[in-house]
Amino acid sequence: MPRKSDKQERLISAADALIRKQGFHRTTLAAIAEESDVPLGNVYYYFKTKEDICKAVIRERKRELSDMLDDCCMRNKPKRALINMVKAMSSHSEELAEAGCPLGSLCQELDEEFAELMSSADSCMKFLMGWSTEQFRLMGMKKAEDLGFEFVARIQGVVLMGNVLNDAKKLRAQLNMVVDWVKTIEPACEDDNRAAA
Amino acid sequence: MPRKSDKQERLISAADALIRKQGFHRTTLAAIAEESDVPLGNVYYYFKTKEDICKAVIRERKRELSDMLDDCCMRNKPKRALINMVKAMSSHSEELAEAGCPLGSLCQELDEEFAELMSSADSCMKFLMGWSTEQFRLMGMKKAEDLGFEFVARIQGVVLMGNVLNDAKKLRAQLNMVVDWVKTIEPACEDDNRAAA
Repeated sequence: MPRKSDKQERLISAADALIRKQGFHRTTLAAIAEESDVPLGNVYYYFKTKEDICKAVIRERKRELSDMLDDCCMRNKPKRALINMVKAMSSHSEELAEAGCPLGSLCQELDEEFAELMSSADSCMKFLMGWSTEQFRLMGMKKAEDLGFEFVARIQGVVLMGNVLNDAKKLRAQLNMVVDWVKTIEPACEDDNRAAA
Repeated sequence: MPRKSDKQERLISAADALIRKQGFHRTTLAAIAEESDVPLGNVYYYFKTKEDICKAVIRERKRELSDMLDDCCMRNKPKRALINMVKAMSSHSEELAEAGCPLGSLCQELDEEFAELMSSADSCMKFLMGWSTEQFRLMGMKKAEDLGFEFVARIQGVVLMGNVLNDAKKLRAQLNMVVDWVKTIEPACEDDNRAAA
């Protein structure tokens, strides 16, 4: 992949911050240009539309998510990987309580009118669910897909409510309860049983 | 409270449908006027701004939520009330998978720039959490507030993921898992134990 120019990176990073703060619909190309200190006329060289820049933001968020999930993984320890993932979320509790989940919010905001973007945001969430399902599968669980759904739903629900209450402490406490739940799940695979003990 | 005029009711109902479909920010007064078949000039007689009409929509949603929760309640059966609430959500699984939770989406969409509206939407969610906490308290649970948070978070998470996957069947299956979880909670109060058995 060609290296991104400095200006392009600044534009994506400014768009990311603005979309996180005020959502996609209220973010304008002009505001992105101002925030990133790139002349508006210059923006069009890199991105034709706001949708294009949002697509780049989603790609970037997916890359970050993917890196985070890689960091959570430990060889032959899928249960530990799931716990690590919740703890990684927990380490961002202040931002999550303040602004909600950047991925969840975007999935809720985008609809059919922006079908391509919506499916792109949804695919990030599906990627997270696929990863979670895979950990449960590695644990030897029969209903891995249901557990993967439940795992992501519980985290997303906690973040949403933590954001409504704007309470990072409660958000962390509730994420700990998700960790406790994962701990109670007995892997059908012995390796992981030993690893998580 | 004075009775609402027919036009006023039509405006609120049109605004409700539009906000549900495309969110608050993209909904314009002009679109609300068109959808409700009320001349735009006439709209200002009832509502000065889009914020005013959105406030009325939130008030209406809170009333509906409150009615639904009342319907779920059964004397001395708080555990049954919680289960009824999840089942009431489940009966709307098609709309929820299609468009997400009208309350959760609004809470995520609104931020400090619309502080009054945001706090009004958040207060609906807090009302739901207060009701849930109260049921757990009636069950004699020590950590009623944590359980109330968890209960609402789980439902909200399931709705969000069901919406991302646009899958009403999975949404219902996961809500059933929330019901199963509530069923496993042993009330400290004997009455309810008998009632839920």
